[in-house]
Amino acid sequence: MSRSLYADLAGGDTRVHEHLSDEAFLRGILRFEAALAEAAGSLGVVSAESARHAVEVIAGFELDCAEVSTAAAAGANPAIPLAKELKAAAGAESAGIHTGATSQDAIDSSLMLALSAASSRLCEDLLHPTLELLRALAEEHRETPMMGRTLGQQATPTTFGLCAALWWQQLHAAEAEIAALRFPVQYAGATGTLAAVYPHGIELHAELARRLGLASSPLVWHTDRSAILRIGAAYAQVAGAVAKIATDIIRLCATEVAELSEPSPGGSSAMPHKANPAASVAARGYALRAPGLLSTLALTLGGAHQRAEGEWHAEWQTLRELAACTASALARCHAALDGLVVHAEQMATNRRTSPAGEQSTGHAADIVTVILGENS
Amino acid sequence: MSRSLYADLAGGDTRVHEHLSDEAFLRGILRFEAALAEAAGSLGVVSAESARHAVEVIAGFELDCAEVSTAAAAGANPAIPLAKELKAAAGAESAGIHTGATSQDAIDSSLMLALSAASSRLCEDLLHPTLELLRALAEEHRETPMMGRTLGQQATPTTFGLCAALWWQQLHAAEAEIAALRFPVQYAGATGTLAAVYPHGIELHAELARRLGLASSPLVWHTDRSAILRIGAAYAQVAGAVAKIATDIIRLCATEVAELSEPSPGGSSAMPHKANPAASVAARGYALRAPGLLSTLALTLGGAHQRAEGEWHAEWQTLRELAACTASALARCHAALDGLVVHAEQMATNRRTSPAGEQSTGHAADIVTVILGENS
Amino acid sequence: MSRSLYADLAGGDTRVHEHLSDEAFLRGILRFEAALAEAAGSLGVVSAESARHAVEVIAGFELDCAEVSTAAAAGANPAIPLAKELKAAAGAESAGIHTGATSQDAIDSSLMLALSAASSRLCEDLLHPTLELLRALAEEHRETPMMGRTLGQQATPTTFGLCAALWWQQLHAAEAEIAALRFPVQYAGATGTLAAVYPHGIELHAELARRLGLASSPLVWHTDRSAILRIGAAYAQVAGAVAKIATDIIRLCATEVAELSEPSPGGSSAMPHKANPAASVAARGYALRAPGLLSTLALTLGGAHQRAEGEWHAEWQTLRELAACTASALARCHAALDGLVVHAEQMATNRRTSPAGEQSTGHAADIVTVILGENS
Amino acid sequence: MSRSLYADLAGGDTRVHEHLSDEAFLRGILRFEAALAEAAGSLGVVSAESARHAVEVIAGFELDCAEVSTAAAAGANPAIPLAKELKAAAGAESAGIHTGATSQDAIDSSLMLALSAASSRLCEDLLHPTLELLRALAEEHRETPMMGRTLGQQATPTTFGLCAALWWQQLHAAEAEIAALRFPVQYAGATGTLAAVYPHGIELHAELARRLGLASSPLVWHTDRSAILRIGAAYAQVAGAVAKIATDIIRLCATEVAELSEPSPGGSSAMPHKANPAASVAARGYALRAPGLLSTLALTLGGAHQRAEGEWHAEWQTLRELAACTASALARCHAALDGLVVHAEQMATNRRTSPAGEQSTGHAADIVTVILGENS
Repeated sequence: MSRSLYADLAGGDTRVHEHLSDEAFLRGILRFEAALAEAAGSLGVVSAESARHAVEVIAGFELDCAEVSTAAAAGANPAIPLAKELKAAAGAESAGIHTGATSQDAIDSSLMLALSAASSRLCEDLLHPTLELLRALAEEHRETPMMGRTLGQQATPTTFGLCAALWWQQLHAAEAEIAALRFPVQYAGATGTLAAVYPHGIELHAELARRLGLASSPLVWHTDRSAILRIGAAYAQVAGAVAKIATDIIRLCATEVAELSEPSPGGSSAMPHKANPAASVAARGYALRAPGLLSTLALTLGGAHQRAEGEWHAEWQTLRELAACTASALARCHAALDGLVVHAEQMATNRRTSPAGEQSTGHAADIVTVILGENS
Repeated sequence: MSRSLYADLAGGDTRVHEHLSDEAFLRGILRFEAALAEAAGSLGVVSAESARHAVEVIAGFELDCAEVSTAAAAGANPAIPLAKELKAAAGAESAGIHTGATSQDAIDSSLMLALSAASSRLCEDLLHPTLELLRALAEEHRETPMMGRTLGQQATPTTFGLCAALWWQQLHAAEAEIAALRFPVQYAGATGTLAAVYPHGIELHAELARRLGLASSPLVWHTDRSAILRIGAAYAQVAGAVAKIATDIIRLCATEVAELSEPSPGGSSAMPHKANPAASVAARGYALRAPGLLSTLALTLGGAHQRAEGEWHAEWQTLRELAACTASALARCHAALDGLVVHAEQMATNRRTSPAGEQSTGHAADIVTVILGENS
Repeated sequence: MSRSLYADLAGGDTRVHEHLSDEAFLRGILRFEAALAEAAGSLGVVSAESARHAVEVIAGFELDCAEVSTAAAAGANPAIPLAKELKAAAGAESAGIHTGATSQDAIDSSLMLALSAASSRLCEDLLHPTLELLRALAEEHRETPMMGRTLGQQATPTTFGLCAALWWQQLHAAEAEIAALRFPVQYAGATGTLAAVYPHGIELHAELARRLGLASSPLVWHTDRSAILRIGAAYAQVAGAVAKIATDIIRLCATEVAELSEPSPGGSSAMPHKANPAASVAARGYALRAPGLLSTLALTLGGAHQRAEGEWHAEWQTLRELAACTASALARCHAALDGLVVHAEQMATNRRTSPAGEQSTGHAADIVTVILGENS
Repeated sequence: MSRSLYADLAGGDTRVHEHLSDEAFLRGILRFEAALAEAAGSLGVVSAESARHAVEVIAGFELDCAEVSTAAAAGANPAIPLAKELKAAAGAESAGIHTGATSQDAIDSSLMLALSAASSRLCEDLLHPTLELLRALAEEHRETPMMGRTLGQQATPTTFGLCAALWWQQLHAAEAEIAALRFPVQYAGATGTLAAVYPHGIELHAELARRLGLASSPLVWHTDRSAILRIGAAYAQVAGAVAKIATDIIRLCATEVAELSEPSPGGSSAMPHKANPAASVAARGYALRAPGLLSTLALTLGGAHQRAEGEWHAEWQTLRELAACTASALARCHAALDGLVVHAEQMATNRRTSPAGEQSTGHAADIVTVILGENS
């Protein structure tokens, strides 16, 4: 996969991004086709010979992304030309190719493969390490007092640990949503009845799901795009949690506040003396794109009949884009947190000059304990 | 509550709407204050005398919505003038009023009371009955063949029962999201440390949650707006399910298709001969507003510090509006479905004239069974 | 019009809001019907007698908003029951009522009447006075140095006058968009052909436009919703300009920065010592709702055939809501600016402690002059 | 520029897309730097020698997009590493590189170069040819009667020419918005005061604008993002016009309606007999992404201080993406229209079977004349 500015700007060379590229999307279609051939062969829906031949043809297929893209224009759909090429490559013995499937089966399954893999990587590579950093900050600074600020004004004291614990809480809730996502296989044929593989359809559907590592329920979701919205909402929740963390870091790094510094602040082309919270700024920039992308995914639930007239097509790029900018946001957020410098003495100074600065931090430390789920 | 065009147009006099009005929002603040007084009294955080007096003052308070609204302008916040008036009304013995609370505690809790009640009503009055209608349609027409349509074109046959079962599936999944929502109390004081009621804060928080019937976790969420996004996403999922159903009904009612009719079609001011699928059109109109409103709720996660500078304020109207237009959409959807006329003979006619019309409906009926969870 | 919390919270009792209420919307329909009767009479499309009778009936009609709202549910449309009631009231002589019109004619025209009046009020009552305040700030502080801040960090000096001039520039550009808006009458009959008043349709359309003070071009826009998006984008631009101003004020009022104070800062229910920039916070809260509402208006361009199946219905509330929250945002922004306290000495202090604070303000004052269009 | 699936799927190899790629974005930064060197040299702000050397260094610079992207991560900004590399390449004589500029100057100007070129291409290659096709359809079918359809139901007759004329009207209005866009240069230095090139700043700004072919007003817009929203709204208006046209084509191609056929309908992987309106479906899929992207651009107006903390960064990808998906939508729309088959006989058949089918088409043909601006 070639690198792109869009991706790399935000540490986009994460392993999440690898699953979201156009090439990965097309390879997912091939993976669907191969698993379908195997499944159909294993259940006798096509002959063992046809299945073996199909698997070989698919394995030997040389994917030319640009060519498929151009061909895809005709049918508004990349799976149609791919299936056609595979059948042509298979020659007379093409019964094992695209058996009983419609293009939406291949595309939806490929999207789910992409999002399933991307979500695992997001959790493992980005969410878990970031949550660990946040937990450590919360624990270390459980009792480090700082001024709380409401509506932009210094209010009463809290602790930096509570601030970090609430970051943790929000990101942890978002991670739970990602972890709870289910990625269903799509396989139902032209109008969702599995007619072309009757009476083996339901069995074949289950076997295909198993081979692809995707969920087998719901059985058909050509027209029920709930899963897409759920995935989108979970990613937007991660992005929102990042927006919160990044915003707070930027604000606490402000020259006049100076309670935090990023580990590797960015310079400026015009002002070399500056120490910009560049990672947090980038994180916030990526995260701000999530709400608009989510709205598109909410819109696409309303498509007509057994296959939508554009709503479906709008999902392919939007869902991957939302996942990619969320991953980018999180990667930059991790960079901001990994080595974040906490200026406890400046927090103390800011408190001393505040009218309510000497008030108690109350239950702040207790609440950190509750949030982090530790029993004393 | 006075009726409004906005609400009634879509059957907005549902019981869901009663909980979403401005007046209900203000009464929720009073309910929070009363429960707080009782909880504080019961735990001895304030004297029994103070608590009793506070409860009486709140019970006797004559709410003037217009007055509070005007006063609210000063602080960008309706809870501040309400708390002030209550304290003034309580006179010297005001210790039981707004004990240890900040305005965000009262407002967030009132929003959660509103959404909790609205969600219960949505399930009971609208979701369950609509799901029952859909289940009945799916069962009755499990084997009623009709042409499936993809990208606007007749494709291969399916059954109307499968179409309805997929409507059921999508709305059922949305209902599960509504039912899984948790509505947490907010009570943490000025900067989220419960300092003003230390060392009784955590205990008082739990007691208050119990009295209001709200969740006690997360303990503090002033800055963690995950719950708002989750609620918004669940409502948008309901609205999206309605958009799907309404779109399909409108399309199947089209003059040239004529496979469905609404039970009470609307007339036209210019064309009295028309039979418009007016309930579905209204439902779709309401549902189309959900994606934009959801995007606002995704945006508001990124507010700064211990109380956001506008992001919080943007939630109050948007969340209630999203819930209200979802309820309106669903009410009109129910009206479209309750007595929906299925023209099976026209479905048959349309099939006969279709090139693929004689193909099998495959597993359509089986899939209905799987979806509805029936064991044969 | 009854007051609502939603409106009043942000100074919603502006005269803009008066034109956006449900009642104003229904009265606009009546105004359309009256002007249509007069126009049809004046051109002899209906008899003078019929026209006069129609005008009297409409003038004497007692509008019951709740009743119309309830009746509107049937047709997903308030104009249908209104026209029906007017015809019933007119009795046998009803030829002058709703002549050649369809419900979309009445509703679209009423929306344009509402937005036209609201936009005039917005300019006169809110935009002009706010621009005057900004101009005065820019002129007075043309050479008042302050630190510029980029990515949250103190950078190099600018002047507060340049900051205010850029606020002016952005709001002035938005005002130009509002002022350039055109509000077309809608009158084209059932499917946009003016068939029912042939051959007088085009003449009658022009006469109706003249009587309502609306534009007569485009001649038909039942299906071309460009005007709605243009209006929405102009309002969102105003809201965005307010968001910018409000954000900067909030940030410059921050305790640690302290370069500005609002004239009447808000208190806090828990922290009476605070001086919150409450007007700016409210302004920002209202403004943040605009992007989501705008996206809905962009979506509604894609409706089908000669009258959209929900896209049209989604406009009615969304457009008025966007206008209302923009007006509220602007009213609160004006409140923040009217008497805004500029702490020039604190600006100087902040500069003295900044590494680049002694650098020149360059062309700042010159740029203010260019922006404000003054020739020295 | 490498092709991508995203682009090609919708005929994305238009010449519009060439200006929107990551590479074009980076090359625009280099073009800004070269023009700045020339302008600074021509006005004596730097020596002729320095300017000449800078221009040579920039001309000889070998852009490695992947390398810049990776380096860009540090400062959340691609212009900083580029300027740094150019200065390093220039050696001791680097005064002519990035003179008086800040990274935002380079990036904003590059974005404007991209959008300016893309908008010209959009008009010339896509909008004009599509408008011509629409005009021809409107003229040819000015009097071809067809049923008008409202709320999905056959209503009264109109003509297909009027339908096409209204498509033309909406796209023509959108083209006028694109044509009216102004693309301002950005050049104002660190905090927008042009301090580093004082007293030559304003003159240099004008010269730079002239050399780049960009507008010189507004003089500074670091903080005033009105231009971005205006561009976004114009593109969303084009996308909305496409959505309308594509939706209508899809609906009129529906099997049961059969009044239109696309010139090269798409096939299906499962149903080779189908003739899908694939170009219109793709067009609609691209167009549906515009509202969400527009909402992001409306949001970014509210950034803080002299350079926004993420709002700015969110613009770069979103604006180019909105332009790209609009171009893709329009290219596919053109493909649908270029050779669109109008089944006038089927329109007649559908009318004959409609209760109101024999009614007059009224002023339909007259209105076409008015819309197309022809004088009879």
